Amino acid sequence: MSTDDLVSLRRDLHRKPEPAWCEFYTTARIVDELESRLGDELAALHVGPEAIAGDERLAVPDETELTGWYERARSAGIDEDVLESLEGGYTGAVAVLERGEGPTVGLRVDIDGLPRAESDDPEHVPAAEGFRSEHEGAMHACGHDAHATIGIGVLERIAESDFSGTLKVFFQPAEEVVGGGKSMAKSEHIDDIDALLAIHIGLDHPTGEIVAGIDGFLAVRHIEATFTGESAHAGGHPEQGRNAVQAMATAVQNLYGIPRHNDGRTRVNAGVVEGGTAANVIPEEARILAEVRGETTALMEYVDDHARRVVRSAAEMHACEVEFSVGAEAPSATSDQVLVDIVADVAGETPGVENVLERDELGGSEDATFLMRAVQENGGNACYVGIGTDHPGGHHTATFDVDEASIAHGVDVISGAIERIARDGA
Amino acid sequence: MSTDDLVSLRRDLHRKPEPAWCEFYTTARIVDELESRLGDELAALHVGPEAIAGDERLAVPDETELTGWYERARSAGIDEDVLESLEGGYTGAVAVLERGEGPTVGLRVDIDGLPRAESDDPEHVPAAEGFRSEHEGAMHACGHDAHATIGIGVLERIAESDFSGTLKVFFQPAEEVVGGGKSMAKSEHIDDIDALLAIHIGLDHPTGEIVAGIDGFLAVRHIEATFTGESAHAGGHPEQGRNAVQAMATAVQNLYGIPRHNDGRTRVNAGVVEGGTAANVIPEEARILAEVRGETTALMEYVDDHARRVVRSAAEMHACEVEFSVGAEAPSATSDQVLVDIVADVAGETPGVENVLERDELGGSEDATFLMRAVQENGGNACYVGIGTDHPGGHHTATFDVDEASIAHGVDVISGAIERIARDGA
Amino acid sequence: MSTDDLVSLRRDLHRKPEPAWCEFYTTARIVDELESRLGDELAALHVGPEAIAGDERLAVPDETELTGWYERARSAGIDEDVLESLEGGYTGAVAVLERGEGPTVGLRVDIDGLPRAESDDPEHVPAAEGFRSEHEGAMHACGHDAHATIGIGVLERIAESDFSGTLKVFFQPAEEVVGGGKSMAKSEHIDDIDALLAIHIGLDHPTGEIVAGIDGFLAVRHIEATFTGESAHAGGHPEQGRNAVQAMATAVQNLYGIPRHNDGRTRVNAGVVEGGTAANVIPEEARILAEVRGETTALMEYVDDHARRVVRSAAEMHACEVEFSVGAEAPSATSDQVLVDIVADVAGETPGVENVLERDELGGSEDATFLMRAVQENGGNACYVGIGTDHPGGHHTATFDVDEASIAHGVDVISGAIERIARDGA
Amino acid sequence: MSTDDLVSLRRDLHRKPEPAWCEFYTTARIVDELESRLGDELAALHVGPEAIAGDERLAVPDETELTGWYERARSAGIDEDVLESLEGGYTGAVAVLERGEGPTVGLRVDIDGLPRAESDDPEHVPAAEGFRSEHEGAMHACGHDAHATIGIGVLERIAESDFSGTLKVFFQPAEEVVGGGKSMAKSEHIDDIDALLAIHIGLDHPTGEIVAGIDGFLAVRHIEATFTGESAHAGGHPEQGRNAVQAMATAVQNLYGIPRHNDGRTRVNAGVVEGGTAANVIPEEARILAEVRGETTALMEYVDDHARRVVRSAAEMHACEVEFSVGAEAPSATSDQVLVDIVADVAGETPGVENVLERDELGGSEDATFLMRAVQENGGNACYVGIGTDHPGGHHTATFDVDEASIAHGVDVISGAIERIARDGA
Repeated sequence: MSTDDLVSLRRDLHRKPEPAWCEFYTTARIVDELESRLGDELAALHVGPEAIAGDERLAVPDETELTGWYERARSAGIDEDVLESLEGGYTGAVAVLERGEGPTVGLRVDIDGLPRAESDDPEHVPAAEGFRSEHEGAMHACGHDAHATIGIGVLERIAESDFSGTLKVFFQPAEEVVGGGKSMAKSEHIDDIDALLAIHIGLDHPTGEIVAGIDGFLAVRHIEATFTGESAHAGGHPEQGRNAVQAMATAVQNLYGIPRHNDGRTRVNAGVVEGGTAANVIPEEARILAEVRGETTALMEYVDDHARRVVRSAAEMHACEVEFSVGAEAPSATSDQVLVDIVADVAGETPGVENVLERDELGGSEDATFLMRAVQENGGNACYVGIGTDHPGGHHTATFDVDEASIAHGVDVISGAIERIARDGA
Repeated sequence: MSTDDLVSLRRDLHRKPEPAWCEFYTTARIVDELESRLGDELAALHVGPEAIAGDERLAVPDETELTGWYERARSAGIDEDVLESLEGGYTGAVAVLERGEGPTVGLRVDIDGLPRAESDDPEHVPAAEGFRSEHEGAMHACGHDAHATIGIGVLERIAESDFSGTLKVFFQPAEEVVGGGKSMAKSEHIDDIDALLAIHIGLDHPTGEIVAGIDGFLAVRHIEATFTGESAHAGGHPEQGRNAVQAMATAVQNLYGIPRHNDGRTRVNAGVVEGGTAANVIPEEARILAEVRGETTALMEYVDDHARRVVRSAAEMHACEVEFSVGAEAPSATSDQVLVDIVADVAGETPGVENVLERDELGGSEDATFLMRAVQENGGNACYVGIGTDHPGGHHTATFDVDEASIAHGVDVISGAIERIARDGA
Repeated sequence: MSTDDLVSLRRDLHRKPEPAWCEFYTTARIVDELESRLGDELAALHVGPEAIAGDERLAVPDETELTGWYERARSAGIDEDVLESLEGGYTGAVAVLERGEGPTVGLRVDIDGLPRAESDDPEHVPAAEGFRSEHEGAMHACGHDAHATIGIGVLERIAESDFSGTLKVFFQPAEEVVGGGKSMAKSEHIDDIDALLAIHIGLDHPTGEIVAGIDGFLAVRHIEATFTGESAHAGGHPEQGRNAVQAMATAVQNLYGIPRHNDGRTRVNAGVVEGGTAANVIPEEARILAEVRGETTALMEYVDDHARRVVRSAAEMHACEVEFSVGAEAPSATSDQVLVDIVADVAGETPGVENVLERDELGGSEDATFLMRAVQENGGNACYVGIGTDHPGGHHTATFDVDEASIAHGVDVISGAIERIARDGA
Repeated sequence: MSTDDLVSLRRDLHRKPEPAWCEFYTTARIVDELESRLGDELAALHVGPEAIAGDERLAVPDETELTGWYERARSAGIDEDVLESLEGGYTGAVAVLERGEGPTVGLRVDIDGLPRAESDDPEHVPAAEGFRSEHEGAMHACGHDAHATIGIGVLERIAESDFSGTLKVFFQPAEEVVGGGKSMAKSEHIDDIDALLAIHIGLDHPTGEIVAGIDGFLAVRHIEATFTGESAHAGGHPEQGRNAVQAMATAVQNLYGIPRHNDGRTRVNAGVVEGGTAANVIPEEARILAEVRGETTALMEYVDDHARRVVRSAAEMHACEVEFSVGAEAPSATSDQVLVDIVADVAGETPGVENVLERDELGGSEDATFLMRAVQENGGNACYVGIGTDHPGGHHTATFDVDEASIAHGVDVISGAIERIARDGA
């Protein structure tokens, strides 16, 4: 693919961000692009329920949301056959290229957007250049549009190379809710991977910088707490209520006050809250969608324990009941040195790459760790690679954007590394 | 109307509760009932924009909600001409009966439902007898279905009596959001009222009990506070966020802690809250829909002042901005003794009425106070009458219901009082 | 006593405020004044342990505080014999005047000060005129200096009158902590009282106004909650702590958020809090001294129930233990109409009294209610009288002061009422 | 000194812990011990105001506390002349040993105790063996008793060695409040130091383990916030109060909720809080003594900024004023490799030392950093050495204790390192 092709594909995906498990247009677009570019060269193209272990999906949204996005994708004029195969939130794809003897190398890219509005500031490039999100309230604010593009670019590049072995590219849905990694890690497609690469663009590294091996993934879990109290007339009988919003507010205040831990980073966030039905009714229900993280799984469990105690006690304080459900989770993982060395070497020789860091810490979470651990448990190696890009706003903010020059860097470095792995082994 | 007719009408309205300014079906049903029962006997029937001062409507919901309810009403097969006249949330009606010389007496009944789910417990009569709400998430949980029914019953009864004078019945929309009273009080229909009665069923008084004059209306105001902070990746850069949900939770905790006041009752409720977009994003926006009340307007202002300071400081604490908007409000009011005496006398002579209280306190708010004050400022008298009914659940709860026997008591007492007013003056 | 004598005595007491159960100087000074003025005319003068039921004292401070105030009183050069009889916090006195046949009338005045600093603003009269508190951190900020003075003035006046019957004046300690009333109500001195008057100066009524009968005493209880967590190095191992101050702060926030009650006034106050030992240590202990009140005992119990649940849950939330102890309490009570009528009549005829209110609400608590209820349960009558005084600052504030003209009003009205009771019966 | 002498001295100091700037007995005891052991061998012994820059003392307690501890020391029968020189909280000492040509080496040991009670559990060795704190509410819970003992032991050992150069031992007061380091760093005694060693015992390292160079000092600042509101009668006029305790509790809740930072460790602690005067008075004053820390000074400033905003907003929310004062602070610092190497070498050859770590992180704060930075800014080197000891309870807890065998390890390693520095240079 030419640089123009890469940019053009990325912009098309950017225009149509879809949240987790709703990547109907995105998946179909990827399938369409792969079929038109590689067609019969692909040994297999597993789509939707064929690509993932459907029962292992985490944090699947409700029927209404799935249907809304499904209908929106349909109205965008995408291939109906592909679309129908994805119905019910079975999104994603695995593309397989077989080129004779050699190791089976995996590349994992994620494809979902975020449920947040995109800036319409004229200084925001997608706004200025006309490829801002067409889906109000949704945005590719983490660069997964670029990830998917790089995945396709790498497939085409390898298909044109003298690579010997098998390449599988995992177009993973639902990373943002830490919901899709497990379902790909549990599919049979992961079983024969000898070496897995995963990528992320940006992460505060500038264009031209490559991080050969990223570690420091925070283990993460999403917990939803639903408080149930009792409503009452707020003017006439406030004493008859059991106020679920008071319970929720008490919990939020104290969740953020969970003690820091000397053993490493911990995180807690009450990312979504809601409660009550009307100004004049003591609120009967409230909900917190919280996230706990830790530099290790033990630290994540430390925060989880505290968080549940806080929530339970806050409910009890206001005579409410509370129920928990776990939405999604991901473990920690580390990048294997043998792959880090290969990526670092290749990156050092790649035009446009000006700086190569051997290692850095993510400081966030990722469900690529499910795939990395699965490969490592099978005796393979895994490595998470950072592709620097100048991004004006931080990840997950309204003004996030990628410097499109870095998309080519990603294709170059990852293709080079895959060829090197096939040649030298890993 | 026979008792069966009253019950049947009430149950039909109960099945189709509509929230404030969305009483499309309800208004059309009332119009239909009046036309079929009274037809040409009515001197006038002002509907929708003709019944209210449209610019004075408070707390009108957004277009999406209005449209949703409008379409729902249309699909219920109601008169399209009436329906179209209500479009955009101009609901309610004023029916006028002219019968020669005599005072102009007003009766105000409210007609809206509440945005809350109705119980499906088989012990809940509407569920058992098949007239539970057909609108999921909406319910007549405050008896306005009975109020509207009584209004029609009174009109028919007076039409059949030897009443001399003018009767206007105000079918007021949007009482639950304290949003409709002002728009009726500002319409020209109120100007010539000499004596105004308003009613409420229940209020913890049993069937057979009448409260001749209710006072103790809490002045009320709805305030919406919208917090805006800055989102950030909750795992990677929590320090870059300005957390609107933390601000909101701090505000909620402290709103409920506003000091009680020695001069009388005060109330505050954070009735609806929401914030954030995703578990892994530091929340950028949050919202509180709060309500402040006071036994007097001064006490309500006391709570309002404190509430705004709490909210502003909570925003500032978390480096967020906050904006306020006022949704609705209503003043306090008192019932005039001359009318209280008449109602008490009539009630004492009404079959089925076993107990008459001269006065009681509402302990809640009501925008009937706008109409009462308007009449009183014009030199007329006003009185708010309580019609006891056995109600299993409290007002605004999922198991609220009325003892339908009390509907006839309402028609009897109010009709009797209107006749007495016309006869004796007030 | 001349007006000058009354003012002079009041100022002496004002200079030496002593908190609950530490009224060593005050009691001895009262004894001294009574002996010098009335000497052998008194049938009895019960002092300290003879005046109260020692085991029924509530909220007695610790040994250190008792000893500190005891030594301070000793150094003021007061009668050592009296002083020694009070040791250990057995303060107060009951003076008995027997004058032949007639009813036994009681007058209860309280004598303790508050643990708060007095203003040194030159506009504050005690500061300007040199009788500001000599006890830093203690102040007669509620007028009990005037109450004690009135008690003595009334005794002398009645001794000089043609009163026939028995008069007992109860100089009650420890009202401010609601700690002394019970011990006087349980003493044998109360048993034969036919009519009891109690007084309070001020209460937002101006000089020249008398409230014949005060009601609306809030039932009250003092609850102390002690949280125990676990300390840890705040920098090195914050995760090893169980933070008692976080628990306490959570409790305080939610105590003030206990829902208001439709049945009447409720109050809650976290009046004294403390916790922790050093900036760099996670706090292991914390304490709240809280007060709950209600317009009725049931309402007070409602607040108490909620308060304990809040405190328990806050402790649990931060993995702390908590223990409760009850410091003091008082019930509600009402003034009997027969006495209210007498006081109103007498007041109406008293020079200097310009306005007489029959009834008003206290809106606070008082352990005079213990004595009132004891008398009423024995078949007697009781009445709580308000003596208006212009007070620049509110009760319990640094600038509270009494208009000394009102002291004479108190003596006049109460003496007159006692004579009338003896003459006419009550 | 024999091991028995070291243990005996340490136990005597342990019995008499004194908090920051109150080390009257401790300083005098150190002086006494040095004079009896080294007498004329010392070139100088600077005591109290001669040892420190008195104006640079931070976090000096109030007169009452100083006087209390001063009197307690006097009654312990210590040398009056020394004692008098310390009056007003000028504690600490610098002992100088001059032995011909060679570098000037410094050793800094801290000497203060903590304001916390010591365990009386029979399993707690000081309780079992009779040297538990005799000062209720104070405790050597951080091993400074052992530090002072090591300082004396090292002086005697070096005096007996063939060391050539100058040794200065800084017996530093007030480390626990981060209050004394600056005053020693600003004294003239630090100016000529070529190499500075500082020590700490324990830190979760077992007996027999030495950490040659400790880094990771958290920059720290103590901030005291005093809230002033307005008192009111909690029952009668809660609305007239401006509640300083509500402000304080809101601040505490939100202080612990300051966002974690991606750049490194941050800490916040509301270590001491208090407020209010009586259960029935709306609290007028409240106080928080808080501590902020960061892995770098910038991170500490980040927490400080947030903390002040939280506190200011909490005050404003409850219409209170707030004033800040800074009690103490300390920067971060690093250990120089040249000294780390020497200490590691010497430790490796020391009998009883079984494990040597080159580096570790403190994870806490220390005002030794003031001295380290002063030396480094003068061109010298500095190193902070950890002396492992089995300690049953954590630092700052009631059951902290040192394994006395480690005291000799400290003397051996530090003396050896000082000799090596003199021999080889640093």
